[in-house]
Parts: sequence; C-alpha cells; structure tokens
Amino acid sequence: MMKIDGGVTSPKGYEASGVYAGIKKSKKDMALVYTKTPAKVAGTFTLNIVKASPVRWSMDIVKNSDVAHAVILNSGVANACTGTVGDQNNEAMAAAIAKELEVDVKEVLTCSTGVIGKQLPMEAILQGVKLLPKELSNTIESGTIAAESIMTTDTYSKQCAVECVIDGKVVTIGGMAKGSGMIHPNMGTMLGVVTTDVSISKELLQEALKKDVEDTFNMVSVDGDTSTNDTLILLANGLAGNSEITKKDENYEIFCKALKEVTTDLAKKMAGDGEGATKLFEVKVLHAEDKKQAVTLSKSIVTSSLVKTAVYGNDANWGRILCAMGYAGVNFNPDTVDLYIESKAGSLKLVENGMATDYSEEVATKILSEEAVTAIADIKMGGETATAWGCDLTYDYVKINADYRS
Amino acid sequence: MMKIDGGVTSPKGYEASGVYAGIKKSKKDMALVYTKTPAKVAGTFTLNIVKASPVRWSMDIVKNSDVAHAVILNSGVANACTGTVGDQNNEAMAAAIAKELEVDVKEVLTCSTGVIGKQLPMEAILQGVKLLPKELSNTIESGTIAAESIMTTDTYSKQCAVECVIDGKVVTIGGMAKGSGMIHPNMGTMLGVVTTDVSISKELLQEALKKDVEDTFNMVSVDGDTSTNDTLILLANGLAGNSEITKKDENYEIFCKALKEVTTDLAKKMAGDGEGATKLFEVKVLHAEDKKQAVTLSKSIVTSSLVKTAVYGNDANWGRILCAMGYAGVNFNPDTVDLYIESKAGSLKLVENGMATDYSEEVATKILSEEAVTAIADIKMGGETATAWGCDLTYDYVKINADYRS
Repeated sequence: MMKIDGGVTSPKGYEASGVYAGIKKSKKDMALVYTKTPAKVAGTFTLNIVKASPVRWSMDIVKNSDVAHAVILNSGVANACTGTVGDQNNEAMAAAIAKELEVDVKEVLTCSTGVIGKQLPMEAILQGVKLLPKELSNTIESGTIAAESIMTTDTYSKQCAVECVIDGKVVTIGGMAKGSGMIHPNMGTMLGVVTTDVSISKELLQEALKKDVEDTFNMVSVDGDTSTNDTLILLANGLAGNSEITKKDENYEIFCKALKEVTTDLAKKMAGDGEGATKLFEVKVLHAEDKKQAVTLSKSIVTSSLVKTAVYGNDANWGRILCAMGYAGVNFNPDTVDLYIESKAGSLKLVENGMATDYSEEVATKILSEEAVTAIADIKMGGETATAWGCDLTYDYVKINADYRS
Repeated sequence: MMKIDGGVTSPKGYEASGVYAGIKKSKKDMALVYTKTPAKVAGTFTLNIVKASPVRWSMDIVKNSDVAHAVILNSGVANACTGTVGDQNNEAMAAAIAKELEVDVKEVLTCSTGVIGKQLPMEAILQGVKLLPKELSNTIESGTIAAESIMTTDTYSKQCAVECVIDGKVVTIGGMAKGSGMIHPNMGTMLGVVTTDVSISKELLQEALKKDVEDTFNMVSVDGDTSTNDTLILLANGLAGNSEITKKDENYEIFCKALKEVTTDLAKKMAGDGEGATKLFEVKVLHAEDKKQAVTLSKSIVTSSLVKTAVYGNDANWGRILCAMGYAGVNFNPDTVDLYIESKAGSLKLVENGMATDYSEEVATKILSEEAVTAIADIKMGGETATAWGCDLTYDYVKINADYRS
C-alpha cells in the first residue's frame, strides 16, 4: 500500500469537474464526480434529526439503488430547513444533471453545504449543471478543482489517494472532503466523496465504510456542532479487475486498510483546517478498559473549549485535560493517570499518577508551538486505545462565525 | 417575597469578610462567611470524577456533620489534582480558621477556585486565616467584599438577597457566587454560598437545595466545561424564629420559592458574566413532552459554539439553533418548530413550522444587540418548559483562556 498524488479521479474510470455557477459571490461553488461504469455505492450520513434535502435524497439512493453514476455537490447553500420546496429543488438539480449525463435520476447522489434555511438558487444551479459535464476529466487537476469547489470556510482543499494490490490487481482509492465549521462526531460532519475501482459487493462496501468512519471521521471535532448535511459517499466501479470481494477475507482486510489510510488522511486534514485553527490537535487515550471508554475520554478532551484555548496559547494547562476527562461521564481513577504532550519538537511527561511532574514550562511551550501537537492520556486500566482529532480555539473561529452569513 | 439589597450577611446572625492574603498578585483572594449560631448545612457539588480536595472535604461535612459555623474560600489556586499534600493543606486551612473561630474543624467548610494542579501557598493561606476573623462584620459591605474576594475572571461580584414571611416571621435568604469559566451543567459549576436564618430540618434543607439547582445553577453553561471544584453551600441558622419546617407544607413552599429567587438571580448573573461575554443569552424551550426533553434541547442550544458566536455577532442565524436541537439526542419534529427571539428591543418570529418567516434581518439584529437576549423554541408536543442561561462566545473568551495561567 502506498500514498500517491491525487484524489477522486485517481481510481480507474472516474472523472471530476468544478465550476463557478453563481451561488457564491465569486468562488467556485459546484462540483461533479462521475463514473461511466456504474458503481456500487455506500454512504454514511448525519445523525442530526434535522436532515437537509440532499441528505435524505442520497440516503434513499444508498439504500435502494443498485448502482450510481454521479455525485453532484454545491457549496454556499445547505438546502436544510427548506421544506418541500427544498426537496423539489434538490430533485430538480439531480434530474437536470442526470439528463446531461444520460443516467437515471436515481443514480445521482447530491450533497450541499452552506447556509441553513435558504433555498437553492435554481438559476445558478441549472447553469452549473450545464457547465459541469463539459469540464469533466480524469486528470489529478480536475479532482483538485472539484475538491476546491466544495470548500466553504476551508482554507485549503482536501484530497488523498492510495494504491494497494488485491488479487494481483492494483486497486486505487481516492477521496476529497470539505469541512471546517459544524464539525463534530456522529458522522464526521462534512462532505466527502471517496472513489475506488475495487470490485466488491454492495453489502461489504457499506459495512467497510460504516466501520471505517468510527475510527476516522467520527473521531474529528472542530466545534462540537453536528451538521444537518454531513455526508460521506463511497463509490466502487470495479474497474481494477480483481475478483469481486464477497466475504471478509484477506482481500477485504487489505481494502479496509487502504480505505482507512485515505479517510484518516482526510479526517486529519479536516481537523487541522478547522475554522480559525492554527494547529492540528491530536488526543490519544491509552490502556482503556474498552473502546467506548477510550473514545469518550479522547473526544471529551478534544472538544473542551478550555483545553482548545490552552492549546492555542501554547499553554501546558494540563489540569484542564484531567478536568475534561473527569466530566466525560465514564469511570476511571484520576490518581493513576499519566499525561504526555508530543510534537516534532519532542515529548514531555506532564503528569504522573494524577499529579504534576517537575517538567519545564519552557520545554512544554516549545512542544506545543508546533503545527501538530498530541496529548496522550494513559489511564492504565486495560488494552484499548482511541485517537481523536481536533484543533485549537482561536480568535479567528469567533471572527468567522460571528458573522458568517454576511 | 421581595428582593432587598445585600448578600450573605443579610440574614440574621451572619458575618463575612474578605482579604488579600497573597495567593494572587494583587487582588483580594480569601473570604470567610461565619455564623456564631450553629447552622444546618446543605450542599451540592461537582459531578466531575476529578474532585478537588476542598470538594471532598465539604461533601463529608454536609453528609456527616450536624451543624456548621463557617465557610472559608480562596481564589487563585483550586487545590485540585494535588494528591494527599492537597488534602493535608486543605485540612490545615480548615483547622487554622477553626482555631481562630473557636469551633470544631468539622464545622468549617472549604472552597477553592483557580488553577488546577498547584498546591495551596500555605504561608499566604495562614496569613489570610489570621486576617479574616478580624474583618468579620454583618454589614452589607462585608458581604460585598467577601463576594469580591472569590472572583477569578469574573468582571463583577455576584450577590442577591430576598425576604419572605414564614409562620409570621421575616425570613431572609442571601447568597454570593463566582463563576466565569469552566461553567457548565451538572452542579452549576461555580462557588456559591447561600445563607438563611430560616429554621428547617437538615433533610428538607438538603432536599430544597437539590431540587433548586436543577432549575437554576444546573441550567447555566458558559463553556461546557464542568469544573473540578463546583460547590454550592446553603447554611440555615434558624434565627428568624419561625417554627422549624419539618414537612413539605406551605411554609416549605414559600422557602423554596424565595430560595429560587436568590439562586436564579445568581445563576443569571453568572451566565451573563461568562468569560469574555458581552451578553446574557437565555434559551426557553416550550411545549416539550417532558422535562428531560425540554432541558436537553435548551442546553444543547445554549452550549452550541456556532449559536454563541452568532449571538455575539447579533446575527439571526436561526439554522444553527435548529441544528443544535437536531443533534441534542432527543426526538422532536423539526417541521413543526417555531422559533422566536426576544429582548428589550422587541420580539420576532424567525421560524414557523421549521421554515423561515419573512422576518426583517434589520429588526432581528436590533433585538439581538441588547445586553440580554432570549431565544424561544416552541416544539408543540406537550406541556413542559425549560429555561437555560449562557452567554455569547467572543474574542475575549479566547484571549482570557489562551493564556490563563500567566
């Protein structure tokens, strides 16, 4: 398995495009991912009770359609809380692009991100629908443009591609994602499209994705807000030529591992590019009794506003970490906890058995000043581990969100 | 029942003082509340697994001591995560002031607030212990000085007093509180001392307090962090002269109502003075199926970083409110929700049955620009209501917390 340059257009048979349709003031705002060869499709979606129209549409396709050919995405307007008009607009967008691509409307998934409560500007959308197919291409560059076109407050586009060998054939997995605010566990809160040319049964594709997000996108939190629009779609068109994966054998494991490589990369990029963030903040909980305990503790630390502001200030205020563990709602013994911080600049034990070590504040600040920092809590109870990703809480987060709509 | 000027010294028989002991750089940092007449004592404490030494000490007194005479409080150092040395220091502080006051050490409650993980500076503490008794007085001013001495990042001191008539006697309840960061439900996260001269059984005093905080301090959230030190103590010395309240009769109800007046006032002051806050943000959920649903939804809205930044920006971004309700984890129908905002500047319906009304953004901004704003969500399911209090999320919250320790 190895990482390669690229994204959604890296696997065989996928094309992508991105255009400016006029939804936003000036930036690219629509994207298309297309496979002429029909692809099996899996998806995970927001658990928010308030689900946007495109979420409900795409959930239905994942559940009921045998194959899919395309994903159309827009940024700028979320098409959430828009009633039956919102549903109609979403279907009109899908129908229009289906017509252009000469596929069935129920083979086109939709994703929207942006302001909640506004209707899709259909004139702009339909203009985008006309432009997108003309720009389709299988180059890496087209994948990059598509990834750029779904950005909202993201500061850079997020994509990743990985190659592995299954059944003697090179299988490629590529993905793109956006996500900067409203980022919080329960379906990693974001839009993401992952493409692959692997041949696999629909059931196993869905199972692989569902299992995968538990350790990847669902472990990301920027601000604790679970969006109305979170969608992750996985397309598999089978063009790699491996014999179809139909059971959980070695080939399935290889595919899952490669998928995790792509989704972990995208998840970390999402966390590090959280709204206003200056750094990626990784939290590991070691030696938990069970997975749930490890996940709960790591998420509680990574979402604490007080921990996040301390990380921003390069301040080794470890008391806030222990405090965040203490109110997480799971049991542990604070008097046996060890805490470490780690980055490119080194590693430092801050707490041993619940009390401060004689560490140097200067060294701690140096470690925390890096662009990616890790906090490690060893709770010495069992053999389970979890890793969560987030970012620091900064002035710019407030600035971006105090007046997002204007 | 009526509000009067004053605080912990307002009820008969209570004295208070506050001094600079040298824990902080220059501000007053120790306070004492004292009643010569022994008082029955009730308390509620943080549910954080990581409990500070003074929390464990005071919990034991509430549980096992028949009466109490004093509460000694310090700001600057939390005495949390400090091991057995922390316990010894806490007890030494209690023993020293008990000696000065000529009471039993197990009749002195302790409260600390400040940095986690640092030991109490015992030289300063013992100096404070010498000074505090000399300054004791029953004036309103002494209560104010005590309230000032427990402030950390609070911008003003918080106190309140109420008079009611029980059994033909004037009963007074007075309170003080601090709390600015690490403020979140599960024991309103704060230090608070409420005094009263009512005569009541210990059991009913505890029950009244426990019930009270559910609707008052536990409905406050500044930043979602539940502190290691949260403590609310209620002392009742019986000097009002009413016949002792020993059952849940009319007199008990009058007392509970007056207590709620004091604690609601303090809770709202805590919320409005959250770290960096520019305004009090109140959230009401109407017509819930049951209390739990109303509480969960109102807390989810009041704690959402995205809602809080929008409130700071005077931006009627109602989609974030619906979104925060949607991920709260309780069921409701988003398509029947009505949303209103309200302040001194007026009232406005933003959403009817899950969709935007044709409201004026200009009017919305005007309403949100006031110092106290309310969001109301009517979910049209039943007869229950809940009110939660918080504040906006601002640049100054980040500033205060990015480098709290230096």
